[in-house]
Amino acid sequence: MALFQVRMDVAIPRDLDPDVREQTVAKEKAYSQELQRSGKWRHIWRIVGQYSNISIFDVDSADELHEILWNLPLFPYMTLEVTPLTRHGSDIH
Amino acid sequence: MALFQVRMDVAIPRDLDPDVREQTVAKEKAYSQELQRSGKWRHIWRIVGQYSNISIFDVDSADELHEILWNLPLFPYMTLEVTPLTRHGSDIH
Amino acid sequence: MALFQVRMDVAIPRDLDPDVREQTVAKEKAYSQELQRSGKWRHIWRIVGQYSNISIFDVDSADELHEILWNLPLFPYMTLEVTPLTRHGSDIH
Amino acid sequence: MALFQVRMDVAIPRDLDPDVREQTVAKEKAYSQELQRSGKWRHIWRIVGQYSNISIFDVDSADELHEILWNLPLFPYMTLEVTPLTRHGSDIH
Amino acid sequence: MALFQVRMDVAIPRDLDPDVREQTVAKEKAYSQELQRSGKWRHIWRIVGQYSNISIFDVDSADELHEILWNLPLFPYMTLEVTPLTRHGSDIH
Amino acid sequence: MALFQVRMDVAIPRDLDPDVREQTVAKEKAYSQELQRSGKWRHIWRIVGQYSNISIFDVDSADELHEILWNLPLFPYMTLEVTPLTRHGSDIH
Amino acid sequence: MALFQVRMDVAIPRDLDPDVREQTVAKEKAYSQELQRSGKWRHIWRIVGQYSNISIFDVDSADELHEILWNLPLFPYMTLEVTPLTRHGSDIH
Amino acid sequence: MALFQVRMDVAIPRDLDPDVREQTVAKEKAYSQELQRSGKWRHIWRIVGQYSNISIFDVDSADELHEILWNLPLFPYMTLEVTPLTRHGSDIH
Amino acid sequence: MALFQVRMDVAIPRDLDPDVREQTVAKEKAYSQELQRSGKWRHIWRIVGQYSNISIFDVDSADELHEILWNLPLFPYMTLEVTPLTRHGSDIH
Amino acid sequence: MALFQVRMDVAIPRDLDPDVREQTVAKEKAYSQELQRSGKWRHIWRIVGQYSNISIFDVDSADELHEILWNLPLFPYMTLEVTPLTRHGSDIH
Repeated sequence: MALFQVRMDVAIPRDLDPDVREQTVAKEKAYSQELQRSGKWRHIWRIVGQYSNISIFDVDSADELHEILWNLPLFPYMTLEVTPLTRHGSDIH
Repeated sequence: MALFQVRMDVAIPRDLDPDVREQTVAKEKAYSQELQRSGKWRHIWRIVGQYSNISIFDVDSADELHEILWNLPLFPYMTLEVTPLTRHGSDIH
Repeated sequence: MALFQVRMDVAIPRDLDPDVREQTVAKEKAYSQELQRSGKWRHIWRIVGQYSNISIFDVDSADELHEILWNLPLFPYMTLEVTPLTRHGSDIH
Repeated sequence: MALFQVRMDVAIPRDLDPDVREQTVAKEKAYSQELQRSGKWRHIWRIVGQYSNISIFDVDSADELHEILWNLPLFPYMTLEVTPLTRHGSDIH
Repeated sequence: MALFQVRMDVAIPRDLDPDVREQTVAKEKAYSQELQRSGKWRHIWRIVGQYSNISIFDVDSADELHEILWNLPLFPYMTLEVTPLTRHGSDIH
Repeated sequence: MALFQVRMDVAIPRDLDPDVREQTVAKEKAYSQELQRSGKWRHIWRIVGQYSNISIFDVDSADELHEILWNLPLFPYMTLEVTPLTRHGSDIH
Repeated sequence: MALFQVRMDVAIPRDLDPDVREQTVAKEKAYSQELQRSGKWRHIWRIVGQYSNISIFDVDSADELHEILWNLPLFPYMTLEVTPLTRHGSDIH
Repeated sequence: MALFQVRMDVAIPRDLDPDVREQTVAKEKAYSQELQRSGKWRHIWRIVGQYSNISIFDVDSADELHEILWNLPLFPYMTLEVTPLTRHGSDIH
Repeated sequence: MALFQVRMDVAIPRDLDPDVREQTVAKEKAYSQELQRSGKWRHIWRIVGQYSNISIFDVDSADELHEILWNLPLFPYMTLEVTPLTRHGSDIH
Repeated sequence: MALFQVRMDVAIPRDLDPDVREQTVAKEKAYSQELQRSGKWRHIWRIVGQYSNISIFDVDSADELHEILWNLPLFPYMTLEVTPLTRHGSDIH
């Protein structure tokens, strides 16, 4: 089990074909929701006022996380920031 | 209900009296755990290799968050970064 | 009630159709003025020498602020910086 | 009439004599409130989670603003950022 | 009377029509020289090795400065940095 | 198995007792060499002209890496930068 | 013998012809693997979540490293960061 | 003749002896005014809200400028930024 | 005599006509070598792994340096950083 | 043969014993001049207005450079920036 925070900032190019854009965004949503249901993508929050999210992943390994991120439908239009996490000594859970 | 991510980087001065240091760290832990039990401090994770945490707060208002943070026992020795969050359109919960 | 400072830096692409540009800027103005009349967009100032503004929002929640910002007609051409505010202890009001 | 946004980040040294500290903070509050009553210090907000404020000044000139800031009791312990403002074309007031 | 330092960094897009480019640069020069003659644009220096200048403006107000800068023929291709100035205590003039 | 690059920048305070300094540096060396022999600290290189190293860790988990780094004898005097790695598609090994 | 860490961040333009893209990526892989077999490109790791790698080169000289990097098939689309390394006093090898 | 812009940010340590402080500031003023009278220190402006100035020097050479700056009584407590200037093509003087 | 270090980072646009590119690079080389022969461009080194150079200029004045740099055939595609130098007290020459 | 540019920024602590300071600066000068005479420290220039130098080293290897820099008498009070260089294709020498 490996925990990571990932911040994703999305910048879809203005000249992307509108249909391609719509389909890519829809695929991204389905892809994310499937991973949420599997428990690997534990949290996703929108950052207020930004086309960005902060997510928490709970995966088997960094290798698995890389596979997940590399295959994000919006990956080519994203800037990603990955922070490895561990249990905090004050955590009550 | 208002969601915030807070990153806390701790830098306790080297010349702080060791007893004061120990007591302050203990108070910080108790303070955090009380807020976790109340549901306001929803998550706390340690950043790997850093004297830092990433936390998620679920409070009534930004005013309440400010009161909570301002009264952290380690507040004078912390750098804080506050990011307002909102529900993400792909969130399945 | 939630207070936020928002800085908006506008960069409309040079190759945007001039009519689209004019209409978008007009819609932005109408949208801003409607929100000003509702009391949610409390202040707006131009930064001297910049295509930028500094604004103060007084909204019900960060969620509401996100909806407002996400629907700004110029949103695709803006960089936004959001800072949560609270009452200052020295404020006489 | 000249409008300025000023951000003040306060960092009082840990080894400042506690009485001096208390008196300086009290003088700062009185100084600020007097200027608020005169109408020159139009707004002051606390930034959530920071020992910082965002203020709006409405003064006769930049010279007057400099005199005001230079004489802040906490000036030696502050980092200041000054942004000149002007009326925004969309402002309804 | 209000004094400002303004740094202007120019980056004319490579695909701008050469005639438009030439005319815009010529208009910029005429515009600058007219303001120099009026005494409002007190100094202009080239930064060595850069398509940039450092200028000193002496205007009635920040509002007037904003009007001047906003109407620079090269404004759409410039990055501007505005610094409010005041008299220095050691100045002999 | 989890791979991480860690950059460590060391800044021992000038007023640290020379004996404490010497002992801490010696403990750091022993600690590092024990972990190298165990195979967890796979590589360590000095950065030319800096009191810094670049290291590669091969550990069971990010949790284990955190324990290792947190217990570095020089940890209080280091700035650490942790980068999670994975196998590269062009790697021949 | 000269050791260098090189970080390569790849950003292939979206409008590059897909065939050219595929061929360039294939050439890059072959080029890298040939240098790995020769022992000059000692390590290559993928950074998790990034189109980036961290590599260690063991070459005769900085001149040789420059020749190698300058001829990378993806060189025109890369940002490179080169850090000279030397043996660390704690290294057990 | 060589023109330079110099920005000086002053940060006198809080624990400097008050008499030394006062004398150093007085010497700095006399030193500056003598150079102003000689024509070498052509302009000095205070930056609003900062213990900083922006100055224009008109010296024989960069070597002479270095001598002048190196001997500023406040030099040990200053951060200096030096920008070489040249005549601007639009300057009417 | 005035000494300057200049760092030049070159970024030729990918869509520049190949013939224009080749001719511009050739002109740049001839221009540089002529100035090297005149003694004004005293040193030029390639930065390892970068399309960049570090150069030392020995010119009559900053004005002359500006003329030289402004007329570099690759000037429109370069980012330049200019640092004025002077003799060092430890220099044995 | 390996060429490096090194920038050294010196910040001697204000509370260093004046005799130690004087001796260390003298040792630094002797150390530098000996290396200049040996041909390894090829150039040293003062940056105008800074307690900094830019130097060019011509050494057998990065390992040798590290030994030289690590043993600079002022090393504990310096920030160093090392840039590996190679021959430039336009160099006439």
